[in-house]
Formats: sequence, C-alpha cells, structure tokens
Amino acid sequence: MTFKVDFKVRDYECDLQGIVNNSVYFNYLEHARHEFLSAQGVDFAKLAKDKINLVVIRSEMDYKHSLLPGDEFYVAVEPQRVSRLKFAFKQMVVRKCDDKVMLNALVIGTSVNEKGRPFLPAQIDQLFKPAP
Amino acid sequence: MTFKVDFKVRDYECDLQGIVNNSVYFNYLEHARHEFLSAQGVDFAKLAKDKINLVVIRSEMDYKHSLLPGDEFYVAVEPQRVSRLKFAFKQMVVRKCDDKVMLNALVIGTSVNEKGRPFLPAQIDQLFKPAP
Amino acid sequence: MTFKVDFKVRDYECDLQGIVNNSVYFNYLEHARHEFLSAQGVDFAKLAKDKINLVVIRSEMDYKHSLLPGDEFYVAVEPQRVSRLKFAFKQMVVRKCDDKVMLNALVIGTSVNEKGRPFLPAQIDQLFKPAP
Amino acid sequence: MTFKVDFKVRDYECDLQGIVNNSVYFNYLEHARHEFLSAQGVDFAKLAKDKINLVVIRSEMDYKHSLLPGDEFYVAVEPQRVSRLKFAFKQMVVRKCDDKVMLNALVIGTSVNEKGRPFLPAQIDQLFKPAP
Repeated sequence: MTFKVDFKVRDYECDLQGIVNNSVYFNYLEHARHEFLSAQGVDFAKLAKDKINLVVIRSEMDYKHSLLPGDEFYVAVEPQRVSRLKFAFKQMVVRKCDDKVMLNALVIGTSVNEKGRPFLPAQIDQLFKPAP
Repeated sequence: MTFKVDFKVRDYECDLQGIVNNSVYFNYLEHARHEFLSAQGVDFAKLAKDKINLVVIRSEMDYKHSLLPGDEFYVAVEPQRVSRLKFAFKQMVVRKCDDKVMLNALVIGTSVNEKGRPFLPAQIDQLFKPAP
Repeated sequence: MTFKVDFKVRDYECDLQGIVNNSVYFNYLEHARHEFLSAQGVDFAKLAKDKINLVVIRSEMDYKHSLLPGDEFYVAVEPQRVSRLKFAFKQMVVRKCDDKVMLNALVIGTSVNEKGRPFLPAQIDQLFKPAP
Repeated sequence: MTFKVDFKVRDYECDLQGIVNNSVYFNYLEHARHEFLSAQGVDFAKLAKDKINLVVIRSEMDYKHSLLPGDEFYVAVEPQRVSRLKFAFKQMVVRKCDDKVMLNALVIGTSVNEKGRPFLPAQIDQLFKPAP
C-alpha cells in the first residue's frame, strides 16, 4: 500500500506564470518523504541534531502538468532499495479532482555521519529491506 | 564559451541540516537560465505576460556536495537542442574557492502558448540551433 | 467567530537555527488570509488575473515563540476596517498542543487596479463593513 | 555611513501578481542584516552552531512600491540600540534606477542562549553601543 500525503496549493507557491514554481515540487516531495519517515518512527530533524544527515544524491523529475492556485493533490511515496548504502523514493504528484498525474519523480538518497561518510542507521536500513 | 552567473549562499536558503536545501538549487538553476535568456534578449517575465510560457518538462540533478552558509559559487549554463520543440540546459554549480563541482544538472524544457500547445518563438528557437 | 486555518510545520520551512524562518510566517499569514477570502467567495488568483491586486501596505509582527519541526498550529484571521480604502487583518499563530500564541500580527492592505490606483471591489468592501 | 547590500530581483521571487512576494522582502532584509553582521566579524551561522540564536522579536514593515522582475536595488542597514538586551535595525529597500524607497522596515531583535534566555555576546553588544 502506498503512503500518501495530502496538500493544497498555496498562492505564494505560484510564480509569475501563475502556476506552482518548479522548485516548490521539491518542497512537496521532501515533506512527503519526511512524513513517510515520521510514520515509520524516523524523525528527520532529530537525526540532523544527532549529526546523521539523510541527503539526496540524485533526483529525476518528469513534469507532466502544472498545479494551479487552490489545486488539491496528494504526493505518493514508495521506498525502494538501490544498493547497500543507497535508497530511493518513487514519488508521484496526483491532482485529486481527476486523479491526473502531474509529476513523476525518482529521488535517490543516502545517509551520512558527521564526517560526511556513508552511515545508514538500522532504523533507516530496515525501511528499504528488499522483499524476500 | 559557457555562460556563468555568480551567487553567494544566503543563510535563509539553508535548512535545519545547516546546508542549502535541495529545492533551493532549483532556484539557483532557474535564475541562471533566466539570466542566460536575458543576456540573449529573451525576457522570461515579458513572455509570460504575452502568454508564452517556457516550461520545464524534465530535470535530472546529481548532488555531489553541499553548499554551506556564505559559500560563493557560480552556475554555468550550456544550451543544447533536444528536438524540434524541446531544448535543454546542461548546468553546473561550482564552488569558487576550490572549483569543486557541487551539482550537475540537465534541465529539459519546451515552450507552450496560452492553450498549453507547444509553441517555440523564433527568438527561443535560434538559441538552440544545432551546430551545422 | 474567528476564521482559522490549520497548518503543520514542514521541515523545509526551518532554517539553520532549526526553527521556522521568520519569513515563513508571512507565508502562513498570507495563506490564511487567502483562505479567509476564498471562504467569503473572493478568489485572490482570479482577481490578480483581472488586474485587481490586493496589496499589503503595512505589517506589524510580534514574534513570541518559535515554531519547531512538526509543530501543529492554526492561524486566526480577523478582518478590520481601517478607512474607506484600507482594511486590516488581525492575525495570530497559535500552537495547538498548548494553545500558546506564537505570533501576533496586524496586516494592513488595500486594493489597486491595473494603474496602481486604489480600487476596492464591492466583494472586498463588504467583508470589512464597520459594525452598525 | 550606512551599510548597503546590492540585490537583483530573481524571477522565482515573484508571485502570481507578477511582483516580488511580500514574504521575500523579509529574506532580503535578513540577508542584508547577516551581511552587516558578517562585515563586523559576527558569523550568524557559527553563532547558531554555538547555540546562541539571534532572534527577531518584532518587525514593522511599510510597503511603498512593488519590486518587479529584474529590478536592481539595495538594502540599507542601520543598527540602533533599543535597550540593554534589545537591538534594532532600521532598514530600507531602495530601487537603484531612480533611488525610490520601496520599503521601510524596523526590525527589533535580541539574542538568546540554548535555554532561550536573553544572552547578548560582547561582539553583538558592541555593535549597538549608544553614541556617547
């Protein structure tokens, strides 16, 4: 079952074209990932305080359609294991009124310690266990 | 010769990890593209007023290293033709103190008219002329 | 009865101090005002398209306490008439877990037409009718 | 002599009204204050790491005119002592092409330690020395 977070476009997120600015989708996707982590008991802000930083190393985003002021939508989050130290989130932005996919994204990340060295805490590791 | 725009990290662009938030790189890249267009006589805001919208349809970003508060850097912009109606920008974020590449990006766009139909004005088209 | 909009702090809204950045409260307040207007049948984005711009001319904000990652809160909106062409919103940011007031604000605005001249549409005017 | 920082409006800072969004002025003002501090040898990010947080407790902003895409402007910063533990910045946003004042602001702040108690380090204190 896919994890979803509900959103509504806020006017300040729109730019002079009158549509949601491209950079704002990154905000939406990040918030949805952090909500996913939170639902699994992982507190991003607390990890940061403990000097364990989850970082994005690559993102691929396909912009299909533009969100407009007031649009209601959800962001879907699906975790995927990439390698021992890398994990990914398949994400989708879906407009609610017609279930239209507005954006598809693949966000690949890893986790580093205070020295910037890869370090995957167990609580993160287990979220991306490959299916048996 | 590659087009470059100078930047300096502003503290409000950094997040609770103390580094520039991932979404902000998209702001940097967008601003650098618009400065590139402006230097070629293309006014993004004026185009938007005339209902011609340059839109991003895909972005690929490789985050190599994190920018920190106060870091000085430049964003390089290199235009590339993808197809008759699509164009791309190869972009790089480079820290100045040591010429380290912090981020590589490929941003693919197109241009649409008021009805959302592909429409590439001549002034845009000629920026992406394929080499003979 | 006061109009309220519910929010939850998103991690990307926090800065390197680990608290919600001061500028983000402006975003919260604006969104709450636009939701208030929307509930009264006034569409801010549509007005802008029709070249009628609601603009802020003065803001006073008292920061009492800082919102933290994940905090749930609401923004209260109370309309007040200032003069024939000016109106105000008394606003409050209240943390839900303990009803603590985090910020008090007074935002004064007016409405201008395409030429920048004061112009208050009837639908706005009636929202700020002075009590008889 | 007043401290000034140069800026140029970036398109992504503009909202659906085609003008710089109100919240963005707060970003401009903050960046100018931090540059002022930096010029005086005070590193805001380093202070935050040391758990000394400079915080805004009140802001008053008068919006005179709207900045537009591409506008060049500067932000002026003038420090003022308010009381033993409070200090203020008088700030102005001035458009360069015609020296027009776009915004006047008064930002009052204080400095707190890890426990949220007022604590003004000497290096901050001396910036706001009252004239003899």
